[in-house]
Amino acid sequence: MTERVLTGDRVTGKLHLGHYVGSLQNRVHLQEEYESFVFLADVQALTTHFEQKDLIRSHIREMTLDYLSAGIDPEKSTIFIQSMIPEIAELTIYFSMFVSVNSLRHNPTIKAEAKGRGLDELYYGFLGYPVSQAADITFCKATIIPVGDDQLPHLELARRIVRRFNELYQPILVEPQALISNTPRLVGTDGNAKMSKSLGNAIALDSTAEDIAYKIKRAVTDPARVHKSDPGHPEICPIYAYHGAFRPEHLPEIREGCERGTMGCSACKERITMALEQLIAPMRERRAYYAARPQLVDDILITGTKHAQGIAKETMKEVREAMKLDYFSPSAM
Amino acid sequence: MTERVLTGDRVTGKLHLGHYVGSLQNRVHLQEEYESFVFLADVQALTTHFEQKDLIRSHIREMTLDYLSAGIDPEKSTIFIQSMIPEIAELTIYFSMFVSVNSLRHNPTIKAEAKGRGLDELYYGFLGYPVSQAADITFCKATIIPVGDDQLPHLELARRIVRRFNELYQPILVEPQALISNTPRLVGTDGNAKMSKSLGNAIALDSTAEDIAYKIKRAVTDPARVHKSDPGHPEICPIYAYHGAFRPEHLPEIREGCERGTMGCSACKERITMALEQLIAPMRERRAYYAARPQLVDDILITGTKHAQGIAKETMKEVREAMKLDYFSPSAM
Repeated sequence: MTERVLTGDRVTGKLHLGHYVGSLQNRVHLQEEYESFVFLADVQALTTHFEQKDLIRSHIREMTLDYLSAGIDPEKSTIFIQSMIPEIAELTIYFSMFVSVNSLRHNPTIKAEAKGRGLDELYYGFLGYPVSQAADITFCKATIIPVGDDQLPHLELARRIVRRFNELYQPILVEPQALISNTPRLVGTDGNAKMSKSLGNAIALDSTAEDIAYKIKRAVTDPARVHKSDPGHPEICPIYAYHGAFRPEHLPEIREGCERGTMGCSACKERITMALEQLIAPMRERRAYYAARPQLVDDILITGTKHAQGIAKETMKEVREAMKLDYFSPSAM
Repeated sequence: MTERVLTGDRVTGKLHLGHYVGSLQNRVHLQEEYESFVFLADVQALTTHFEQKDLIRSHIREMTLDYLSAGIDPEKSTIFIQSMIPEIAELTIYFSMFVSVNSLRHNPTIKAEAKGRGLDELYYGFLGYPVSQAADITFCKATIIPVGDDQLPHLELARRIVRRFNELYQPILVEPQALISNTPRLVGTDGNAKMSKSLGNAIALDSTAEDIAYKIKRAVTDPARVHKSDPGHPEICPIYAYHGAFRPEHLPEIREGCERGTMGCSACKERITMALEQLIAPMRERRAYYAARPQLVDDILITGTKHAQGIAKETMKEVREAMKLDYFSPSAM
């Protein structure tokens, strides 16, 4: 069986270097080896952003540009839109029959996210989003799901759902395997543990050279280091983390210069600025190419979505047969 | 605007006189006045019967025969299958974004049903079935929903969901009105408050004359009445309830004969047996007609389902526009 990789992103904002390091970079490699599906999770975005009705539409093409600019190749990856696969909704409904409310409430990620977002009410759709994720994975029979540690409980639930479905009905669904990413989360330019657009500490994938230079220039460093000769503490400095993420081969040199006070923060920042510009410049070029061809971007989305729709129809046919909900011959409808 | 009535039944068993009195009879009248939709709720049946995978398929055509025999006229009513309308699943997912878990947990009907069914675990799909009912109602923009008292909290939730959707996005969904049925629940032949197939106290709509006679003969009556001359207590006798439901014009005479001890239970039972046979005989005839024409029954289901699918597509188009999830022109897909 061909291995099939599925990844996706909630359509809630532009992608940035945190996404690149944590996931996009990996996807660009994976598409060389595996059949690859990448989806724009607009329905899942609604679980938390249902009130901001312009947000999703305004980001769907921008995020597609982010994908294309980062190197997701539409010849190698199927890019599709979640809400345009109604079978995901149908599978979610079928799975929800045998997933207990308690198993969802006790999911540590749901608990943390519900708390973190400060929802005073827990919404039914939010509580059930891991069920919906299981439907995302199973409709296309994805076999490999790259995940961070925090997503492992969701993937484990998806695996349990597949096993239960296969045992209740017929063994037609594929149990996905986690591909655990060891990449640490990219720190924000303000030193916050997480780079995030909403915190204003992110470097977007569509940054200009000036944007990059400005963001790095304003980034915090070790506050104890007032003069160049003061010994620095690289492990608390976001710039050092960026060297680690984007030019790891130079890390020993950077550490030495910082700890010994032989290299100043400005020089250190200049180097990472150059490295980031080298990384982002070709992205900017690819982005400009696609941004100038909106119909091509739409065609990529439409082609990918139609491909996914075809697979979804096949899976749903099997699901209906397995559940004995196939009342008529397909030709009759 | 044309008023549109929607009713449905969980596909978990054959229909009986309790369904006829409580709902079918009313639907047969309503289809004369209103545009009428009747659906086979196979997805909702799964909320409690997901483990019995042959149950639904084996009942879907039998229930259709029940409908046709009871007088649901496919020329006047659209009969359709719930699971064949994927838009119901999609709407359920969208609505679930803004329905709180608490509002579902505190729904008295959910509470009672969860308890009554002895579920030691509450399933996510079961908890959310009122959300799914709101989707049943809204996809076809039903305006009138005949309900019993016990279903009122669900309808109220559906109305709240419609108002919230219309306020969040665009006012495109129709708030349904309850048509409250005052018909008391039909008592079982064993005196149990509810006629139910699983309790073995039901008279099925496909009963033969012999079945009816046998069921009535074995039905309990007032146990205090040993001899014909003993004064009876009609209010505790199921046979008296049947006279009330099926030949109310004769009720005073039956009461008098029972209370004064001038009419014995056998004579009383003979009369209701005859009345039931008169009611069921034409049903049996219609049933035989359709049962001999399975392709006609399938055609009725397929035609009705296709009609509902067309309406669902229209509604979903409006929903996607309202939610700004209409990314491409329809011709592009």
